[in-house]
Amino acid sequence: MNVERLKRRFNKMAEIGATERGGVQRLALSDLDKEARDLWMKWAREANFNVRFDDFGNMYARLNGRFPEKRPIVLGSHLDSVPQGGRFDGTLGVLVGFEIMESLKERELELQHPVEVAVFSNEEGARFPTPMLGSGAITGVFTKQHVYDMKDNNELRFEDELKRIGYQGEETNRLKQVEAFIELHIEQGPVLESRTIPVGVVKGIQGLSWHQVQFSGESDHAGTTPLDHRKDPLLSAVRAVYRINSWVNSLNDETLVTFGKFHTMPGTINVIPSEVTFSMDIRHPDRSTLLNRVEVAKRLVREIALEDDTLSLCEDLSFMPPVDFDHSLIETLKESCGHQGIEYLELFSGAGHDAMYLNRLGRTVMVFTPSTGGKSHCEEEETSWEDIKLASAAMEQTVAKLSLSRQEIIDT
Amino acid sequence: MNVERLKRRFNKMAEIGATERGGVQRLALSDLDKEARDLWMKWAREANFNVRFDDFGNMYARLNGRFPEKRPIVLGSHLDSVPQGGRFDGTLGVLVGFEIMESLKERELELQHPVEVAVFSNEEGARFPTPMLGSGAITGVFTKQHVYDMKDNNELRFEDELKRIGYQGEETNRLKQVEAFIELHIEQGPVLESRTIPVGVVKGIQGLSWHQVQFSGESDHAGTTPLDHRKDPLLSAVRAVYRINSWVNSLNDETLVTFGKFHTMPGTINVIPSEVTFSMDIRHPDRSTLLNRVEVAKRLVREIALEDDTLSLCEDLSFMPPVDFDHSLIETLKESCGHQGIEYLELFSGAGHDAMYLNRLGRTVMVFTPSTGGKSHCEEEETSWEDIKLASAAMEQTVAKLSLSRQEIIDT
Repeated sequence: MNVERLKRRFNKMAEIGATERGGVQRLALSDLDKEARDLWMKWAREANFNVRFDDFGNMYARLNGRFPEKRPIVLGSHLDSVPQGGRFDGTLGVLVGFEIMESLKERELELQHPVEVAVFSNEEGARFPTPMLGSGAITGVFTKQHVYDMKDNNELRFEDELKRIGYQGEETNRLKQVEAFIELHIEQGPVLESRTIPVGVVKGIQGLSWHQVQFSGESDHAGTTPLDHRKDPLLSAVRAVYRINSWVNSLNDETLVTFGKFHTMPGTINVIPSEVTFSMDIRHPDRSTLLNRVEVAKRLVREIALEDDTLSLCEDLSFMPPVDFDHSLIETLKESCGHQGIEYLELFSGAGHDAMYLNRLGRTVMVFTPSTGGKSHCEEEETSWEDIKLASAAMEQTVAKLSLSRQEIIDT
Repeated sequence: MNVERLKRRFNKMAEIGATERGGVQRLALSDLDKEARDLWMKWAREANFNVRFDDFGNMYARLNGRFPEKRPIVLGSHLDSVPQGGRFDGTLGVLVGFEIMESLKERELELQHPVEVAVFSNEEGARFPTPMLGSGAITGVFTKQHVYDMKDNNELRFEDELKRIGYQGEETNRLKQVEAFIELHIEQGPVLESRTIPVGVVKGIQGLSWHQVQFSGESDHAGTTPLDHRKDPLLSAVRAVYRINSWVNSLNDETLVTFGKFHTMPGTINVIPSEVTFSMDIRHPDRSTLLNRVEVAKRLVREIALEDDTLSLCEDLSFMPPVDFDHSLIETLKESCGHQGIEYLELFSGAGHDAMYLNRLGRTVMVFTPSTGGKSHCEEEETSWEDIKLASAAMEQTVAKLSLSRQEIIDT
């Protein structure tokens, strides 16, 4: 593959919606998203790929190979960003996929499977408030009506905006069953960098369970209520957070717990709160372990309410089961690394990605590159080109192995 | 004293601004406040008291006695309420004072001091957002301009509203130095009720110190950041609340601490907070002890930030030093209870009252009646008439002792 060409395209794409501090802001179906799409389509046409886009604006560039009727090997990700986002999230996976496909074409190999690069709409959920909307739509997670009626903050509809930028295509153009889907993405966490390992072989996406925990007590005057007359739900809440966090720490495994929201009612400086509410985000890559973690956390909440004579309520907000990626693809990816002497780490993705839904169309795997400082969704987002080269090389060999006959693999 | 007349007036007053669930809503300088003031002035005129009101709308009814030039003994409180407040807060002190003065008059005793009943404007701080505004204004705590320019939520000025309801009087009518000020008030806490003691002899008003505590850490993705890579300020904040509260509990003294506000930034379910802020309200009746409690609490905050590698900031918001009431008045009140076999408890007030500022015009004391369920500032506010009778009797005897010569006291 031609890393210089990849870099050139990457820098060109980063100009569209470039922010002052080196990031990009390219919200889904905005004028800037259209500009990015137009540029990508232009490159695909210049490279003589077959291009199309479907009724959700997902775009595809295709190399037919010898057997166009066979299931395609698909590479891809997304071009939209969060507000004041980075240059790498999504875009890197799209452009590395594109470079690999172009490189396969230039090598004039006899491909046993078509190869495609896909760009999915509104992955971030930053404008239309559901992440992975385009990939979820073609895999049956969301209905067409739901997606079309989704509104942004200015009450603009998804369908209207899709039409406006000229990317409402045919339903028949949707991606169907795939031979394999491979998504390269930045890790968005600190693990690879902290261990100075250039490539992450992603075994799956951890599941998550979201809850709202509420403690109720008795609101009273801060100055006139002795401590032993209080039923202060804040004290229950802080003990619950502390106890759940300590327990998760003591497990010393892949369980994650986060309390992102926390607030008191009535929220007055000299009034003992009547009600305290906080969010609880629990994650684990294994479904039954995740369910166990949720059960124990809920039990700890109830125990504390009993101890404190307060009332507790734990509401389930959302559950996303873990996704396991395909074992054979994971093995092929690891072999590709091993063959080229590239160090890799097997890990789980902590964030959702289009690959999570693409998993429904065929076997899937992801490749991670390190995120400098573990940072993402911000202008400081960064990944070194040394690492991108190694991850792309591992991915290219994996794609080659999948798309070529055994004889040809030996030849190359 | 005539308890039936007191009760009749109390019930009549409770009709003005009566709420559906048995409370009252009578915001300062509202039409309902005017109605309450008019009724009280009518009663004062009917009883042949001299009436006046000052430039802040504080109202006074006066019984001159034998030596009108002497400093008056003043009884009183306020008639305004919080939104959806109770019938007792403030009003009870005004009407008990009125009944005691009328009773003194009817007994045709030869008073050595004038006696007055005072009604102070905007005590609650519920409409114009500073509590004890009328009493603070005449005691030099607030300037006239500050009080006059104070605005309610609808941008209406204090002075304009005072004029509108017809209660802007002369500056010369203000209360000046007093021989004694005695305020009867509901406890607004659970102590008297829980010990089934009908009368509280109030030794002073505890001081308070208000702070905003902030912990800062690093905002990160809840799904991609392993626990040992986090700098989560929420965990510091919950530990700080827990540690400070446990320490205050272990002191087992009059120290109170309350955390009424608590919130996270950015406050998103799947984002580790970057910043957590909470309020800290610390109270103690002794000034140097209060200052010590504040110092230790601040040190605990700093220690936790050091342990957790987060940043802490503790901002001072407000400090009200404790107020000690007059020893001789406290003794007289206790003697009055003892003389009539009335059980009493010496305690500190946890809330601010007009007596806090009146203390600047002469020696001051307060009498508390029990609050059912410790509740106040709500429609359920309640105090039994049995208890009111006993507290009024103790207060009446105290006033009599102060206003009569020794010979006359023996006679009565």
